[in-house]
Amino acid sequence: MSAELRIVALVFPNVTQLDLTGPVQFLSRVPGAAVDLVWHSTDPVPTDSGFSIVPTASFAEAPQADVLMVPGGQGAFDILDDQVAIDFVKHQAAGARYVTSVCTGAFVLGAAGLLSGRRATTHWASHSMLSLMGADPEEARVVRDGNLITGGGVTSGIDFALTLAAELAGADIARKIQLSMEYDPQPPFDAGSPTRPEADQELVASLKANYRAIREGLVQAAAESR
Amino acid sequence: MSAELRIVALVFPNVTQLDLTGPVQFLSRVPGAAVDLVWHSTDPVPTDSGFSIVPTASFAEAPQADVLMVPGGQGAFDILDDQVAIDFVKHQAAGARYVTSVCTGAFVLGAAGLLSGRRATTHWASHSMLSLMGADPEEARVVRDGNLITGGGVTSGIDFALTLAAELAGADIARKIQLSMEYDPQPPFDAGSPTRPEADQELVASLKANYRAIREGLVQAAAESR
Repeated sequence: MSAELRIVALVFPNVTQLDLTGPVQFLSRVPGAAVDLVWHSTDPVPTDSGFSIVPTASFAEAPQADVLMVPGGQGAFDILDDQVAIDFVKHQAAGARYVTSVCTGAFVLGAAGLLSGRRATTHWASHSMLSLMGADPEEARVVRDGNLITGGGVTSGIDFALTLAAELAGADIARKIQLSMEYDPQPPFDAGSPTRPEADQELVASLKANYRAIREGLVQAAAESR
Repeated sequence: MSAELRIVALVFPNVTQLDLTGPVQFLSRVPGAAVDLVWHSTDPVPTDSGFSIVPTASFAEAPQADVLMVPGGQGAFDILDDQVAIDFVKHQAAGARYVTSVCTGAFVLGAAGLLSGRRATTHWASHSMLSLMGADPEEARVVRDGNLITGGGVTSGIDFALTLAAELAGADIARKIQLSMEYDPQPPFDAGSPTRPEADQELVASLKANYRAIREGLVQAAAESR
């Protein structure tokens, strides 16, 4: 039986695995959905969290996506010059109903030329670098511009997934998924973004500086080779 | 170099993968932490979301846990009579600083005799069945009773992990992890628990009834064979 709704997500070495696993948990509950995790081969891919995930399909085997999703992490920057991966994203995006990213997966969309002139978001610590990709960076947890839906850092992927679930199947289905996932967040601290009162501003400054130092060159090179 | 803090999490077929991957994302950022995902062998384990995760160690190879964590899902009920898995949990728990579960992983702790007379929580839809394990069910997203810390359904695991991170490394470290994970939740709907205004009460009733029908016998059998 072929799925009615093909979710195709990229997976790659050193992915921030929750960027991927959070949305996939929610989106796999959309009626008719089938999820594929795609990479060069179906050998296990090491994540940032000390364990590996097995892709379900290689680039060659992957079905055309209805929803294309690219997660982030340091690994996303390491594949900006992987022409096979970037071409896969570009070709899939051309046939997808929705083109999406979570966290710094936005930069992979950027390397595929998919952010030019479009509003987008990413992890707060790399947010300002989005403009190097020609995007119009917007500070929000979920940003929609036409068929482009981007999520902010890591756990933003869950709010992103609920937003997308409502888009795909209606608000009632999204609410049912939220209930079954018991997504009624009660963080024990209020430090989840740079604007929050308990956020450590020294960490904000140092993460922004560190990420710019190690990532800006990669982003510029990718933007220039598009 | 040996890790200072050994996080040992169970992984099993048909695990609700976000029960596992959410907390692991946060806990892997605690300074000195190393995560192991453990099952009978290191062959890939299929999750509930259409992809597989690779265990890092077999039961025989696993180090003694500082933090033992058991995730949930329908798969948790299917292993309540797996004596090797239950004995692993029992023996690990005896040497662990913290014994923990997320979602219906609590029932695996119960099958290992670890909930008797102790306050605990689990996914709302299976919550009332905790008493069959001799536990004192408490309706909360995170419940602590001595060295036993249990989380509610699925995404509760993130609040659980931040609570545990603060316990392990202090509140400042927990806040830094929250910031780096951009955990500043903004759910687009307010349907995340049965008490929320947008929660579908028909779904609440039917999930409770369905889960009781398919799970209560397994839970009773496990409680009796302890």
